[in-house]
Amino acid sequence: MDEIPDVGELVPPERTLLGPGPSNVHPRVLRAMATPLVGYLDDYYVDVMDDVQALLQYVFQTDNEHTFAVSGTGTAGMETAFTNLVEPGETVLVPSNGYFGNRMGQVAERAGAELVTVDAPWGEPLDPADVRAAFERHQPTVFGFVHGETSTGVRQPAVSELADIAHEHDAYVVADTVASLGGNEFYTDEWGLDVVYTGSQKCLSAPPGVSPITFSDRAVEKVRNRDTRPRSWYLDLEGVWEYWGEERNYHHTGPISTNYALREALRLAGEEGIENVWDRHERVAGAIKAGVTALGAPLAVAEDHWLPSLNAVTVPDGVDDSTVTQRLMDEYGIEIVSGLGALEGDIFRVGCMGHSARPENALYFVTAFAEVLADEGAAVNPASGIEATRQALSE
Amino acid sequence: MDEIPDVGELVPPERTLLGPGPSNVHPRVLRAMATPLVGYLDDYYVDVMDDVQALLQYVFQTDNEHTFAVSGTGTAGMETAFTNLVEPGETVLVPSNGYFGNRMGQVAERAGAELVTVDAPWGEPLDPADVRAAFERHQPTVFGFVHGETSTGVRQPAVSELADIAHEHDAYVVADTVASLGGNEFYTDEWGLDVVYTGSQKCLSAPPGVSPITFSDRAVEKVRNRDTRPRSWYLDLEGVWEYWGEERNYHHTGPISTNYALREALRLAGEEGIENVWDRHERVAGAIKAGVTALGAPLAVAEDHWLPSLNAVTVPDGVDDSTVTQRLMDEYGIEIVSGLGALEGDIFRVGCMGHSARPENALYFVTAFAEVLADEGAAVNPASGIEATRQALSE
Repeated sequence: MDEIPDVGELVPPERTLLGPGPSNVHPRVLRAMATPLVGYLDDYYVDVMDDVQALLQYVFQTDNEHTFAVSGTGTAGMETAFTNLVEPGETVLVPSNGYFGNRMGQVAERAGAELVTVDAPWGEPLDPADVRAAFERHQPTVFGFVHGETSTGVRQPAVSELADIAHEHDAYVVADTVASLGGNEFYTDEWGLDVVYTGSQKCLSAPPGVSPITFSDRAVEKVRNRDTRPRSWYLDLEGVWEYWGEERNYHHTGPISTNYALREALRLAGEEGIENVWDRHERVAGAIKAGVTALGAPLAVAEDHWLPSLNAVTVPDGVDDSTVTQRLMDEYGIEIVSGLGALEGDIFRVGCMGHSARPENALYFVTAFAEVLADEGAAVNPASGIEATRQALSE
Repeated sequence: MDEIPDVGELVPPERTLLGPGPSNVHPRVLRAMATPLVGYLDDYYVDVMDDVQALLQYVFQTDNEHTFAVSGTGTAGMETAFTNLVEPGETVLVPSNGYFGNRMGQVAERAGAELVTVDAPWGEPLDPADVRAAFERHQPTVFGFVHGETSTGVRQPAVSELADIAHEHDAYVVADTVASLGGNEFYTDEWGLDVVYTGSQKCLSAPPGVSPITFSDRAVEKVRNRDTRPRSWYLDLEGVWEYWGEERNYHHTGPISTNYALREALRLAGEEGIENVWDRHERVAGAIKAGVTALGAPLAVAEDHWLPSLNAVTVPDGVDDSTVTQRLMDEYGIEIVSGLGALEGDIFRVGCMGHSARPENALYFVTAFAEVLADEGAAVNPASGIEATRQALSE
């Protein structure tokens, strides 16, 4: 410790980030990160917070007053949802069909929840009938589900139906949209969701460090009527709301620069129009999907629950998935990742998020992927994969 | 929510940040914030984490293996300490002589602690005899204290004596150095501390967003032998250590850009040499102290527990403190803040941290402060205040 570590200049390699996040960050957002600071109670910063809140209401498609950015990465958003909403001893229903559904359960347990699950195979969405059956059997007070499951590339359809089931049972519904918000259509209010959280570094394409969240008035009411205090001081909604709400009293120091960046990323979404942001993700991811399908490595999930922001691409026979991801990284600077849990070795996870969701990246990825697969001896057809990608992009 | 909020370009006013943090950020650190991202498991990012850990060991002056940056601001560091170290029902001793000492108690309670306090007046440090008496009376398992109390400008002297008292009682000692680490001498290992945490945005002068922390092997042992799991998943040491430790397995997404910035800020500290960083804080803060004293607004704390990074300056008679802070902000772009709690209205809190701790800022502040006080009708002597500052800086 007495010796000064010998650390050189920060010069990261350039990457095309097509993994499960972070995505590449738009130059305007990077520039916002480098903006000199003001104090966390400076009038200007309070205006920045106002802007962030208004823009978040827009991208969440909500009128919820309690809409803000948690001072931590996506899992801090998840913990904010469950720590506030759940009191010890309450029964919480979570899905078992993916890594982040499982994490919801672990986080809810730390909040003191009794855990019950609704099951579906990894790679499939929840069936509303199963959710209804789980409600009738266990009577949970809180039900969490994952809208875009990063580990499987599955988008949960029928969201409003799930919310209705929860509300018929007088329960609260929490949606994890870390990997999906901004990547395809999402309507917090119209779908009747009580708490929704996301990450800054996926489809919104700011750097990681904050976690946007929104609480319905009904959810806030539950938090206000708790008998016990939430198990986190840092993430306590009532404390945090002293700062983000009208009083603007200090609670904890916010990550000022990352909120600068979030503001700029959301501003870009506003300039493009959120519907156009959704469409761009679908169009670029659609080109990747067309390309890998023509190549002979189709998506492993069905069309009606395809998650454009995270594409589960089948690993062709005879190919070692980690050799392919390593070669893409080493030879092309492209980050994609392997499958997790039940899907380990079966899929590649190819993200298409935020500023990474650009036509040139679809073309670059499919070309590089085709070359590496062919070189590894897979029975793939590079030319038709590349052609299908071009075709899809020109439509 | 359907309307796109009308949000303009991010153009914050320029500020001289001499409040309780954040401090001004060095241009090299701002540039690091704007560096394009790599993935959170990229080989390059793992090297960045290695660098951050080595540099943190240097600034903490520790050989502790478990040294890393929590993915949240200072209070997340505090919560990481207590959530991991404390099991429900354990007795935790905290000080009552400042805002952040009180916060320690609130955070420990959320972890399930039975709280006891050791008292001292606001503006005074803890007396080791009182700490010993509290230990004998309550037998706490964990004792937290604040090394640099931002609310009062008091530095706790006799740190190793406090640690010895805790260890004689087989307890663990936690030091809050959010406002002090880097601002004057500090020796984690030599002083025998079990857990120490700080903020990125104070004397280390990176933007807020991460919270450096170090756990002794003895503290880690206590965490490993818990009967219950920590009440936070996000801040769970064993989970977090899967990522920061040798395995480098994903736990949660780290705030990559802010860790880039922390690395650069720590690298600057290494280039300057940590002893020189301490000296610079003392020299520049000493010039502020000399200036305000000559002006007729002396420090409200005694010399032997002066905290150079946060100077408690007496509000002269007949002056309204909030008028002065507002005028400094509006007319000079200088941020200083009013007293809190028991010291509200009695002191100004004048920070001197990190890249803000530069001679030009001392001179600029004392000059502006003198002008405003005189203009507000205080019986102060502007010329001698400015002269004393110049003199102190030229020594």
